[in-house]
Amino acid sequence: MKDDFDGVAIVDGNNKNTNFVTRHFVIFTVCLGVVCVGIGLLIGYLTFPETLRSASDPQVGDQTDHEWVSKTLMDNIDAAKIEENLKYFSKRPHVGGTLAEKENAEYIKSVWLQQGLDDVQIHSYTPYLAYPDINNPNKVHILEDNTVIFSTRDHEDVLRPEDENSEVLPPFNAYCASGNVEGELVYVNFGREEDFIYLADNKPEINITGKIVIAKFAKGFRGTKVKNAEKAGAIGVILFSDPDNYSPGDTLGGYPNSWWLPRTGAQRGNVWVSDAKGDPLTPGFPANDYAYRQTEKHAELPTIPVHPICADDAEMLLREMDGDEVPDSWKGALNVTYRFGPTLKKVNRKIKLEVIAIKENRPVYNVIGMIKGNVEPDRYVLMGNHRDAWVFGAIDPSSGTSALLEMTRSFGNLHKKHGWIPRRTIIFCSWAAEEPGLLGSTEFLEDFQKILADRTVVYFNVDSAVTGNYTFQGKTTPSLKKAIIAATKKVPSPDPEYDTTYDHWLAKDESSTYDNEPYVRNLGSGSDYKPYTYRLGIPAADVRWRYPTDLGLSSHPVYHSAYSTFYYVKTFLDWDFKRHQAVARVWTELGREFADSAIVPFDGVYYADKILRGMEAVRELYETEMNKNGITFDAIMSAINNLTVIAATFEDKTQNMDTSDLLAIRKVNDQIMLFERSFIDPLGLPGRKFMRHVVFSPALHGGTPFPGIRDSMYRIDFDPNKEQRWEGVKEHMATVAFMIQSAASTLKDVTEF
Amino acid sequence: MKDDFDGVAIVDGNNKNTNFVTRHFVIFTVCLGVVCVGIGLLIGYLTFPETLRSASDPQVGDQTDHEWVSKTLMDNIDAAKIEENLKYFSKRPHVGGTLAEKENAEYIKSVWLQQGLDDVQIHSYTPYLAYPDINNPNKVHILEDNTVIFSTRDHEDVLRPEDENSEVLPPFNAYCASGNVEGELVYVNFGREEDFIYLADNKPEINITGKIVIAKFAKGFRGTKVKNAEKAGAIGVILFSDPDNYSPGDTLGGYPNSWWLPRTGAQRGNVWVSDAKGDPLTPGFPANDYAYRQTEKHAELPTIPVHPICADDAEMLLREMDGDEVPDSWKGALNVTYRFGPTLKKVNRKIKLEVIAIKENRPVYNVIGMIKGNVEPDRYVLMGNHRDAWVFGAIDPSSGTSALLEMTRSFGNLHKKHGWIPRRTIIFCSWAAEEPGLLGSTEFLEDFQKILADRTVVYFNVDSAVTGNYTFQGKTTPSLKKAIIAATKKVPSPDPEYDTTYDHWLAKDESSTYDNEPYVRNLGSGSDYKPYTYRLGIPAADVRWRYPTDLGLSSHPVYHSAYSTFYYVKTFLDWDFKRHQAVARVWTELGREFADSAIVPFDGVYYADKILRGMEAVRELYETEMNKNGITFDAIMSAINNLTVIAATFEDKTQNMDTSDLLAIRKVNDQIMLFERSFIDPLGLPGRKFMRHVVFSPALHGGTPFPGIRDSMYRIDFDPNKEQRWEGVKEHMATVAFMIQSAASTLKDVTEF
Repeated sequence: MKDDFDGVAIVDGNNKNTNFVTRHFVIFTVCLGVVCVGIGLLIGYLTFPETLRSASDPQVGDQTDHEWVSKTLMDNIDAAKIEENLKYFSKRPHVGGTLAEKENAEYIKSVWLQQGLDDVQIHSYTPYLAYPDINNPNKVHILEDNTVIFSTRDHEDVLRPEDENSEVLPPFNAYCASGNVEGELVYVNFGREEDFIYLADNKPEINITGKIVIAKFAKGFRGTKVKNAEKAGAIGVILFSDPDNYSPGDTLGGYPNSWWLPRTGAQRGNVWVSDAKGDPLTPGFPANDYAYRQTEKHAELPTIPVHPICADDAEMLLREMDGDEVPDSWKGALNVTYRFGPTLKKVNRKIKLEVIAIKENRPVYNVIGMIKGNVEPDRYVLMGNHRDAWVFGAIDPSSGTSALLEMTRSFGNLHKKHGWIPRRTIIFCSWAAEEPGLLGSTEFLEDFQKILADRTVVYFNVDSAVTGNYTFQGKTTPSLKKAIIAATKKVPSPDPEYDTTYDHWLAKDESSTYDNEPYVRNLGSGSDYKPYTYRLGIPAADVRWRYPTDLGLSSHPVYHSAYSTFYYVKTFLDWDFKRHQAVARVWTELGREFADSAIVPFDGVYYADKILRGMEAVRELYETEMNKNGITFDAIMSAINNLTVIAATFEDKTQNMDTSDLLAIRKVNDQIMLFERSFIDPLGLPGRKFMRHVVFSPALHGGTPFPGIRDSMYRIDFDPNKEQRWEGVKEHMATVAFMIQSAASTLKDVTEF
Repeated sequence: MKDDFDGVAIVDGNNKNTNFVTRHFVIFTVCLGVVCVGIGLLIGYLTFPETLRSASDPQVGDQTDHEWVSKTLMDNIDAAKIEENLKYFSKRPHVGGTLAEKENAEYIKSVWLQQGLDDVQIHSYTPYLAYPDINNPNKVHILEDNTVIFSTRDHEDVLRPEDENSEVLPPFNAYCASGNVEGELVYVNFGREEDFIYLADNKPEINITGKIVIAKFAKGFRGTKVKNAEKAGAIGVILFSDPDNYSPGDTLGGYPNSWWLPRTGAQRGNVWVSDAKGDPLTPGFPANDYAYRQTEKHAELPTIPVHPICADDAEMLLREMDGDEVPDSWKGALNVTYRFGPTLKKVNRKIKLEVIAIKENRPVYNVIGMIKGNVEPDRYVLMGNHRDAWVFGAIDPSSGTSALLEMTRSFGNLHKKHGWIPRRTIIFCSWAAEEPGLLGSTEFLEDFQKILADRTVVYFNVDSAVTGNYTFQGKTTPSLKKAIIAATKKVPSPDPEYDTTYDHWLAKDESSTYDNEPYVRNLGSGSDYKPYTYRLGIPAADVRWRYPTDLGLSSHPVYHSAYSTFYYVKTFLDWDFKRHQAVARVWTELGREFADSAIVPFDGVYYADKILRGMEAVRELYETEMNKNGITFDAIMSAINNLTVIAATFEDKTQNMDTSDLLAIRKVNDQIMLFERSFIDPLGLPGRKFMRHVVFSPALHGGTPFPGIRDSMYRIDFDPNKEQRWEGVKEHMATVAFMIQSAASTLKDVTEF
């Protein structure tokens, strides 16, 4: 708070002004001056806001000097301590809704209290969760004359003795249906919509109805694959990790010899397209003790069994398949000829899928820790990471959890030992049960939706702190881009060849740059920020250390498998934990900056530009077709122009503000907060009531920004209700124009309508 | 702003403290003291918010003295000027969407600019409006052998020569369907749901399908009557004003001899149950040039013709009717035997209804005038009245419009001549096209929904300033009750027998009192505050001078007829315009208080009590039945207890605040603003996406508060889908408990979750 006026500055200023007094009056004069100024100060003190007084009472260092605070916080982030944390959290599986996750919650609570956070609470909810039956693991069989001649393995092979652990759940896909189904098998490539369309167009003789389909993981959310298969009439889905996507070019057999997924690894994960609903039974409301719980059939969970298998087991199944050979683009890297099916080579053989899905309400535990702000305690900076993992979760999420606990140690230390108090309230969140569908974070949002929507300035998420050893990655809503760039410039590079993390990032980043900066990605929807941004309109970012993009991976290789272990991280990703340290430091600096800056960092000009570029992309895709149907981009482009001008004016106005005027600052910050909120349509995107961000919510059929335009145009020519669909396009185009105008209105002079 | 520190106070304080200095140093000392303090002041001045400086620069009077401002504003409200205004506005019809309404808008704009408002703008929208065909007025005929032997009159009879005006539209009901229908006639009393149920239960032989129904006005919204008739299968609706409801006991024949409706008067009005949607074709969005307009069939307008007739004409129709005599409770005061029908006495006769409904998009014009706030210009106090009338509208709304223009004159005068600037921005709104369905106000809300929802502190509406000569009436959301009481205590009584308007009100009010105060009513849904409160959660009130409740009227007698003239108002309601003056003063004082008070007036304790009492009423109605179905009030009562405690704590905390701490005040006000918002369910009440206030939205089937509970329980036993209905009750009860908890959370300490 360096611009706030405090006693020291006033005394200095007045002493200088007393020097003109004649020499023999000097002593008296000085005394009197001091007395008078003292009286003035006393009056000022007594009439001046309490909150400011407490902020200007440093014990060590100048806490109103943001640079000092920033450096102290960052210097205190210790790589070795993150390593210790990771060892702790990855020692046993900690699946959402299990005892291990609860114990970790209690552990974090005790650590945070000890670290000096002001308040730590455990908030519990009881959502509907899904598990396999550990006594009857799910499997796929090959039957010959109705006798099982091969079964997929119950568990992934244990490849290092330390990985043996009785708490490891067998691979499964959460929220699929229970069921025993058998029959023929159809290979559907990645199971994307385009894959099913390809099949329908080019292999119309293959009727998927009544068949089991087998699809590769990667290139899209597994829940969408299942939904597509259901829609095509499949009775079951087998998902597998093809070496082409999870160990391309690997000659060492993967973990524990290389960072790749071994052929015995399977990918867990939920298969429900939840669209930010949180608990399937209590959409819109927290899963508390008096919540109304709808029946499962209203929750629109998948209705067919699904099971994830490893490459080795998949090869056994693919070998059985007959039918035409698939085109090259559909082939994977297994040592088989990939065929469409649906027939098997031997007519007396069948494929059988056995799935038991145990679904029940179970308590889960969010840990919420706070350092309360002194100037604006009612403005929240959320710093979150989920705690639950499908297995050991050394990467996802415990690399993030380990960084979180080191970050809180540093904040706690500055707060407790040096008496530092942030301007705004920092809320550290250890979310429960993210993996089944962002449950902990969404239920918390739903529980406190009114105050969170009103008061949250920003949400900084770290899901996995380190997923590769390549370089830094930032994903964000546009207004935070500038702040991410700035933070990375302050954090030393883990690689001594570069000065800062920013330099490292800029040098390594493969993407086309924007203004000679490394590429900051769109936020996407892979973690707990999703409901915060797309339901409430809270700006959010997710930072990590990543693998190179030219590997073409959809996730880090051991993602959601039993091989994401401490050994793996230490051996292949971050031997000295300096990448964890760098990410923790960027995260810390972002949190501090948003908690302490008088004006909340914002970049409306870049936001407008992102909208313009995004709209130009959409326009290129659809303008011709739209024009033919009487729809123009005129209103939208006019709204974007308007926003562009207003954002620039707003930036000019805020750049030279007097930061000692607390109310003026608050007013501008309120405009900044309202800006992202203004993209929220309270009724949601077409057909998606909880996905409400008209610009950046991810589209159902892929692509961003402007999900509603993309989805409403998706394959419109093939729709039998084409006319009705075009009405929907027209309606949504008007909505988009309106929402952009609304956003512009938030940055205008506050008395301009 | 009397508690803000300004130069004068500090200088005084310091001079006193310099008196201890020895005598021969006094002059020097004083000089030096002044210099030092001056320096301190200069520093303070330069670093202190700009906004405060401009506020502490009075030209005349002490503008930081709220009492002085209040008195000056009120003293300036001139009864004679209101009378002049009313003469102006009631001289010709000014129906929404017509030239007259546009001209009035331009007139108001020019007056406001001249009165000294900072900014006046006309905001135009183009909603879907409905009119009769003036060349072919709608009518009802009696046919004999298919020949017309009687027709209802095209226009109401002109009873005073000055009332002759070619712009008077013939009576019609906006948004009904066009159509010529003929057949038998069924008398359905008031056309309420209970009336149709009575018929179905007691007269099952009367099949309404294919019949025309005739219903009395009063006891409920005419649109609901039409909806009920449609549901029962009627092919047309005739509505009439029965003397029993519009001129009970009158011996003078009504206007122009008494204040009652003459038997030639008909009630116009819209018959669409819009549920706060605004323009029928653009729900959710402003009806601007790029808006998406749905087709009429999606708008769910009435599908049958409807026509309003006068008592004299109704008598002619009722005379034709055969069938059983109706029970006493169904009888009106016409000189006929009221019969159910459906048959007519003469078998060769039929009733024919001829309606032409012209529906088209037409521009309408809101006039928005502002006095911009200096401390919190981004906080809006809305002061609104609609401008359109069905005919001359001397009561509805021009009595309010006349008060509005006198109020703005007073505010403008203080602002322009005395340099007074309110703390917050006051926005004066002259709404267009309220009568067809709150169109002007709703479209404005939709246009600026993001900033209005975020920044509006309160909305004070005056629809009709004077509807009777009896006493004051206030309708409000609970948090404003205290402020209304306080305002009436400051306004002199128009009747010299009482000191203040409050005394008058307390003496005259017929209702049971609450804490020995006159009864402040629930807000209801009769005017432009409806979307502001029930869609956005903005506290609102409506004030007026009213007629006695023991007359049992549903509206003032000449409501929506051609007889609501200046002569009528001057003769029967307010000969000296002191009632108008009193209402204008209360309105002005409320606006000033909310624009200028440091802490926004609020009464959470009373709000909690209203919720408790409201819930107890609901509980008494439904608890037994709910318990049988496994539903308890436990969660709700626990939430209410919680709210009650928290509201009391909040009140304690805010009562002794240091009002010089601008940011602290802002934070508390933000909590106050969020409180009412927290009752908004973004998805709306069950089946009503734009009626979103869970506590005070009016129920579809009548009653308040807790519309969702009332509607979900309404005749649940008679529903064939009873089980599904009970699920809905369970779900909504949980929602209500949650919303009350949410409201409580807004008033808690801001770092308490």
